Amino acid sequence: MRVSRSFLPVLKESPTDAQIVSHKLMLRAGLVRQTAAGIYAWLPIGFRVLKKIEQIVREEQDRASAIELLMPTLQSADLWRQSGRYDAYGPEMLRIKDRHEREMLYGPTNEEMITSLFRDEVKSYRDLPRTLYHIQWKFRDEVRPRFGVMRGREFLMKDAYSFDLDEAGARQSYYTQLLAYLRTFQRMGIRAVPMKAASGPIGGDLSHEFIVLAPTGESEVFYDASFEEFDWHQDELRYGDAEGLRGLFDKVSSTYAATDETHDEARWAEVPADRQRQGRGIEVGHIFYFGTKYSASLGLKVSGADGSMVTPEMGSYGIGVSRLVGAIIEASHDDNGIIWPEAVAPWKVGLVTMRGDDAASVTAADDIYAKLTAAGVETLYDDRDERGGVKLGSMDLIGLPWQLIIGPRGLAAGVVELKNRRTGEREELSIDSALERLTA
Amino acid sequence: MRVSRSFLPVLKESPTDAQIVSHKLMLRAGLVRQTAAGIYAWLPIGFRVLKKIEQIVREEQDRASAIELLMPTLQSADLWRQSGRYDAYGPEMLRIKDRHEREMLYGPTNEEMITSLFRDEVKSYRDLPRTLYHIQWKFRDEVRPRFGVMRGREFLMKDAYSFDLDEAGARQSYYTQLLAYLRTFQRMGIRAVPMKAASGPIGGDLSHEFIVLAPTGESEVFYDASFEEFDWHQDELRYGDAEGLRGLFDKVSSTYAATDETHDEARWAEVPADRQRQGRGIEVGHIFYFGTKYSASLGLKVSGADGSMVTPEMGSYGIGVSRLVGAIIEASHDDNGIIWPEAVAPWKVGLVTMRGDDAASVTAADDIYAKLTAAGVETLYDDRDERGGVKLGSMDLIGLPWQLIIGPRGLAAGVVELKNRRTGEREELSIDSALERLTA
Repeated sequence: MRVSRSFLPVLKESPTDAQIVSHKLMLRAGLVRQTAAGIYAWLPIGFRVLKKIEQIVREEQDRASAIELLMPTLQSADLWRQSGRYDAYGPEMLRIKDRHEREMLYGPTNEEMITSLFRDEVKSYRDLPRTLYHIQWKFRDEVRPRFGVMRGREFLMKDAYSFDLDEAGARQSYYTQLLAYLRTFQRMGIRAVPMKAASGPIGGDLSHEFIVLAPTGESEVFYDASFEEFDWHQDELRYGDAEGLRGLFDKVSSTYAATDETHDEARWAEVPADRQRQGRGIEVGHIFYFGTKYSASLGLKVSGADGSMVTPEMGSYGIGVSRLVGAIIEASHDDNGIIWPEAVAPWKVGLVTMRGDDAASVTAADDIYAKLTAAGVETLYDDRDERGGVKLGSMDLIGLPWQLIIGPRGLAAGVVELKNRRTGEREELSIDSALERLTA
Repeated sequence: MRVSRSFLPVLKESPTDAQIVSHKLMLRAGLVRQTAAGIYAWLPIGFRVLKKIEQIVREEQDRASAIELLMPTLQSADLWRQSGRYDAYGPEMLRIKDRHEREMLYGPTNEEMITSLFRDEVKSYRDLPRTLYHIQWKFRDEVRPRFGVMRGREFLMKDAYSFDLDEAGARQSYYTQLLAYLRTFQRMGIRAVPMKAASGPIGGDLSHEFIVLAPTGESEVFYDASFEEFDWHQDELRYGDAEGLRGLFDKVSSTYAATDETHDEARWAEVPADRQRQGRGIEVGHIFYFGTKYSASLGLKVSGADGSMVTPEMGSYGIGVSRLVGAIIEASHDDNGIIWPEAVAPWKVGLVTMRGDDAASVTAADDIYAKLTAAGVETLYDDRDERGGVKLGSMDLIGLPWQLIIGPRGLAAGVVELKNRRTGEREELSIDSALERLTA
């Protein structure tokens, strides 16, 4: 993408209405703009990050054999009356009347709808187990939306729902999503620690939150350093391996991790002092096993292998896709701007000419841009006739993993500069070596 | 995807509440389910088709240098008051009050929002021209939603908006989208004829509708047979080539095509009788040039090259992404079900064992499935222990381009059967030849 032909508005001043660093940086780097309280438009950079995160979530759900579909944003109130939640849900639910005065709502979550869809199509134990998911915009009418996309009103969520014949099956579905979540966050280049959670308004007795560690996080967290060392992609652990999944769950359960709400001083004291980690964190996912709460109230039954009718056991599994954009920035930034983990970066490389009015620089950069693009390397090319310092400042702010800097002096000596945004390391090397490095 | 582990509910009976063939087939083949009047959940097959269509639209917009972003579904009423459309828009606009009694609406389109976003970021003629687009759910509160996703209330639309310094620029942006549209529909394997349109509620004086030809279409259409022969992907026509684009526009304008609303008997009589084509069609896209209607009312101005302030000229360009799923089915089906053009098919191949209880068939089919998947060929594998005839009927209904049929007798003789869904042609060939054909 050439900056000269794009729509990447960068702010020089730090916005005064933003209280937390991710919100400030998302405004300054041109990721989002607020269009109404707690509602945001995603400008090109923010949109690209959102799509990368969404795609990682999708791929890991697919790998875990969850089946994607797409439910609508608006739902009928009648559906929620069947579960009893229409009246129970507070003013966070956006209630709507259509032109015929029919009561509707903008879905804050989809337990009722998925249960009713599943109920109408399945008849037999042979149709289970299944985990279905979608990635769709939700709305929660927060009384004081704030912190940008971290506590917005319209937000993008992945929500999955599992249907099993018995508790043992439901637990395996739960463990499967647990593993999928650990792998999902690890792929994004962030550390998310699973913490046993109180079950909250959805109900149920088995629940974990996933907390991204970030110094500016909303909750205080306590965890065993082991969580910094686990590799959730380890080959030996496969979906479908019931014993391995239970082992994973036992490992997660027996390794201390808690928010200030669930913190247990006695168990904490048992963690060796040199392994105690204390910090702050941001919730980015939440998984629940809640048994037959919705299947029973919405009349979902299937015939079992012995002919008797079975009410399936369910769980639900959420990831805050749009919230993750903010959470990752909270976890990964410095004074100069965002530092994207490569897996979610809007582009891998920022290509900058220090002198947009120098013909040799422009020729060299055009050629490098063509080669990187042809090699499939996502590149943002700042080809504007702007001062080099301004362009480098923008690149630091936007936070792409690599900057490739073309200056007249270096070019005369046959070199360009490659900068690693995270470490700040700069290296002079030939154009060919730089291309080789970036396309490797 | 293995049918035994998926969620692909197929109906044996034709639903009685569906009036048109695409709606019937989308329900029977399990593409969608209605969750409220005119609101649909997209089940896995429908979701896959929707994503394929969306991706073709996206790639062709990107190729035409349109820039993708994402605006929210809910908008503030104040924004629409600035353009005067809040009161002008009829009851199709879904008006909403949030918990603080603030007036909002579910966006039926985004002229106001994009103009205001663009206005707040651009200052100079150097920031133009730009075409921005998004693909987002919209809502129009139809008084009588019907025909399934063809006239639903919540629908997915691609809407692009162009900003130019003068009318000449705006016309070039319009021609660019015209070409992008012709290429988009051609890639989907359908014929969409551009027809000069009355401008409608958005306003403006240059406007085309794109009509997919289908015998069950909503409008009567008249067109020159040339539209059946044009190849819009022809290499010689490039974006950025102003003269070529104007030539394209002249060609489209001078070749007769009209709906019954704009039909002109005198001009029609000039088309040689053997080139007159008459039929029915479905609108799937609409493009407008409307000058400064929104830029003026929303105060979008940039400084021109000479220092004077310029009010940009705008156009907007819509494609009904979810509507296209229905329109393609209307254009491409037979008595047995849907016939997907390969570019938008949910999978390329349907793999069927005639006897799910025959070990040799299952072993062979498992192996073929693994090989097709490894080769990146999207395959739906009906591995259920069901009667072969039932499975073939489902495959015809779902309408994948190819069926690969494994039977015990053929297998004993070293052959499998490959069926072309569109032509019905069946061919016996060795497994290796079949794989070669499908992976070529």
